[in-house]
Amino acid sequence: MEKVTITGDVATVLKNTLQQGNFTNVAVLVDENTHRHCYPLLRDHLPEHTLVQIKSGEIHKNIETCVSIWSVLTQQSFDRKGIMINLGGGVIGDMGGFCARTYKRGISFINVPTTLLAQVDASAGGKLGIDFEHFKNHIGLFSEPDQVIIDPVFLQTLSARELRSGYAEVIKHNLIADKAGWEKIKNTPFEQLDWKAIIQHSVKLKQNVTDQDPTEKGIRKILNFGHTIGHAVESFLMQRNRAILHGEAVAVGMIAEAQASYALGFINAASLEEITSYILSIFEKVLLSSEDIQTICEYAVQDKKNKSNRILAALLKEVGNASWDIEISPAEIDQSLKYYVAQT
Amino acid sequence: MEKVTITGDVATVLKNTLQQGNFTNVAVLVDENTHRHCYPLLRDHLPEHTLVQIKSGEIHKNIETCVSIWSVLTQQSFDRKGIMINLGGGVIGDMGGFCARTYKRGISFINVPTTLLAQVDASAGGKLGIDFEHFKNHIGLFSEPDQVIIDPVFLQTLSARELRSGYAEVIKHNLIADKAGWEKIKNTPFEQLDWKAIIQHSVKLKQNVTDQDPTEKGIRKILNFGHTIGHAVESFLMQRNRAILHGEAVAVGMIAEAQASYALGFINAASLEEITSYILSIFEKVLLSSEDIQTICEYAVQDKKNKSNRILAALLKEVGNASWDIEISPAEIDQSLKYYVAQT
Repeated sequence: MEKVTITGDVATVLKNTLQQGNFTNVAVLVDENTHRHCYPLLRDHLPEHTLVQIKSGEIHKNIETCVSIWSVLTQQSFDRKGIMINLGGGVIGDMGGFCARTYKRGISFINVPTTLLAQVDASAGGKLGIDFEHFKNHIGLFSEPDQVIIDPVFLQTLSARELRSGYAEVIKHNLIADKAGWEKIKNTPFEQLDWKAIIQHSVKLKQNVTDQDPTEKGIRKILNFGHTIGHAVESFLMQRNRAILHGEAVAVGMIAEAQASYALGFINAASLEEITSYILSIFEKVLLSSEDIQTICEYAVQDKKNKSNRILAALLKEVGNASWDIEISPAEIDQSLKYYVAQT
Repeated sequence: MEKVTITGDVATVLKNTLQQGNFTNVAVLVDENTHRHCYPLLRDHLPEHTLVQIKSGEIHKNIETCVSIWSVLTQQSFDRKGIMINLGGGVIGDMGGFCARTYKRGISFINVPTTLLAQVDASAGGKLGIDFEHFKNHIGLFSEPDQVIIDPVFLQTLSARELRSGYAEVIKHNLIADKAGWEKIKNTPFEQLDWKAIIQHSVKLKQNVTDQDPTEKGIRKILNFGHTIGHAVESFLMQRNRAILHGEAVAVGMIAEAQASYALGFINAASLEEITSYILSIFEKVLLSSEDIQTICEYAVQDKKNKSNRILAALLKEVGNASWDIEISPAEIDQSLKYYVAQT
């Protein structure tokens, strides 16, 4: 699939794509951050276009914002040969893609992800949508972007904390699918990582998995490693006004789920120790009390990915190899989070 | 494709489908009319389910109604193995299908069309969606229902006027694709038509066309015969509070577009005369003044199916054979509507 282009010259690649496509209208979707920091890199290379600005943040990933986007496209008389360029992180890509694929039953869209998280994770896989009544990604559809153009230059617009948050998904991809890749990143100091190579590798790993199972009936679920517990941690802390970044929560989740993998007899003690210490070398410890842990376990039971109240997780069978739909009990989650908390 | 079942026993077919499907939740979408007249035929044959009632009519085919539908599914904790049964006409099928395919990135849905229009036209083809800011079907997507169950018993719940309105699409299907079928219906008194056979024939014709071109890039456009002008007539009269039914507007559109087909040298005078007199034997004349005609021509120019202000229509090459993307001028539309008005 050459739909994903990783380049050091996003402006030229985008310009060529638009020239070849013969589109009647072009829209560029931004938030206030990507408007300021990313749009200037592209503006002068684009044909005449409509800039659509929305407010940044997960809190605006909702149907009201979709209505405002559809409204601009309508006012500008976009027809079925129009195209939308989503310039931003996961929220922009997910929501912009959803709006594009539902406007007049579907127009083209290109994702230009600007965060590491979106570059390695949200750019491929075709999950589009918005949040609804406090449920994440509750309304949406599966559809791949027409093209994804990734340029590491945008990583310079991120804070160190955001960069590390995106890196959690890189760690995940290696843990679930590539032991050699895991060894390599583990033995390279964070500051010396080659981002272009890392993005290429992660995108390929993820695409390989999603191509096998586009609608998440089976193997694609291994991408949820770290997310069953991580998502519960994320939701819980958000609820308590102690919100952390997605990747930071996934880092907690990966350590906890590695412990669960160990407790179920899949990985050995040495692997668990190696995973734990590497992740804690990148991410600060998140403080969780015993009461916090209890409530997080309740959140995990309610998670949308679980059928009929059983908690099904993707766990590591060994380093570089994961399996899915493995039942874990609230007691095991409790245990695994106590392991996380006990680390020094 | 056995996805479309035409049956005299909708309750049993539906019951069997639901038993085989092993769904975790079942919702039935109705409006106040189908709740009263159609739902009683099914209720006792269905497993435990959630009844979702919306207000009838095109005016409620909007994003607010979708939010209310998604909300019920969410409250009832529908997961990805849930299913929605859309019991009603085109609005229920289009909007219910859209809500189903976007809830948690897509759950199953079955259409049980209850109007002749929906049975012969909206049941197959996969156009899902809602109106937006006065544009019909502006937000939506292409996706086929998992199953369509058609039972002519529901036609008994329709007024004579609604039945005739749906019949306009039957006439259209024969005119664009089946000369023998056209001869047959033309020579059968309306009261003696065999609805089950007619529905079977129309569904097959339409499915044959949409299977060849699911996303309407080419041949599928022949299904727009009668609709370029018909849609303009419909929008115009609605705007003036003189609303007529969809099929009644399409009947006007088919006569006008048959005249345009004649004026462009495709069909001969005898065919035009035969089409005109048959349609006028079924549908009452709609009164249109010269000023009306002028405004209708302006509406046609604005129609969403036209690129760059050229009016592209599907016209008859001969009876039983149509072609698409044929440019017609506002002057030709004016001419064709004058022909319609001149009929006695």
